[in-house]
Amino acid sequence: MDQRVSFITLAVRDLAASRAFYADGLAWEPALDVPGEVLMFKVADRVVLSLWDETAFEAEVGQPINRGGGIAPITLAHNCATTEGVDRVLAAARVAGADPVQPGEQREWGGYSGYFADPDGFRWEVAYNPGPIGQEVLP
Amino acid sequence: MDQRVSFITLAVRDLAASRAFYADGLAWEPALDVPGEVLMFKVADRVVLSLWDETAFEAEVGQPINRGGGIAPITLAHNCATTEGVDRVLAAARVAGADPVQPGEQREWGGYSGYFADPDGFRWEVAYNPGPIGQEVLP
Repeated sequence: MDQRVSFITLAVRDLAASRAFYADGLAWEPALDVPGEVLMFKVADRVVLSLWDETAFEAEVGQPINRGGGIAPITLAHNCATTEGVDRVLAAARVAGADPVQPGEQREWGGYSGYFADPDGFRWEVAYNPGPIGQEVLP
Repeated sequence: MDQRVSFITLAVRDLAASRAFYADGLAWEPALDVPGEVLMFKVADRVVLSLWDETAFEAEVGQPINRGGGIAPITLAHNCATTEGVDRVLAAARVAGADPVQPGEQREWGGYSGYFADPDGFRWEVAYNPGPIGQEVLP
């Protein structure tokens, strides 16, 4: 099995709320938009972020989604070239309706990052990572 | 905020089990390997999959992880150019220790896919997607 991710799929409760946040709020351009079913965005070369109605997700994957009291055990990160870039993206996410937004801070691992939540509570990390692997992911 | 994912981070219970599956089982090459803390793999151009010890994840993100009875509300997909490719990858995942493995089948959305679970139960979709967006993610 090649070392490759093609799609990142998140199960969402309300695609209209996802569209309002990602397409209207963040001004991201959908690659595919089927109201009530799925909303897709290209987020890297040959990688698509897919927001999929949770009922359809459960039907195809064949398992109920964990709906306890915590957050999903995943974050998606958007890396920036500077700490100021991190602060700007967090501010933009707040304007787009992200809630909560945890401000950037210095991290033990040597970088600077903050987090915001999308309409389903999925956490995005906005990060400045001065290490070699952090520099490799920058455009 | 640019339309970009840099890292996909999954919170894992036992990094040694993750290493046994991804590095030993699937023969993926780590980009960073800090035992007990984090294990990273490049999975696309400028995209890294990071498996992070769940205790460290919760400490930094500042929220407890949802640990109810279902699965995480996310899948990662590995797309293949043919249905036979899907079957081969699912078989390789099974040999590597994936459990359960749901065999490939025709899907309503026009493709063919199956799923396997990694040691934490994260679902990977292995898919043949003949649509335009599916063809775009292929190497």
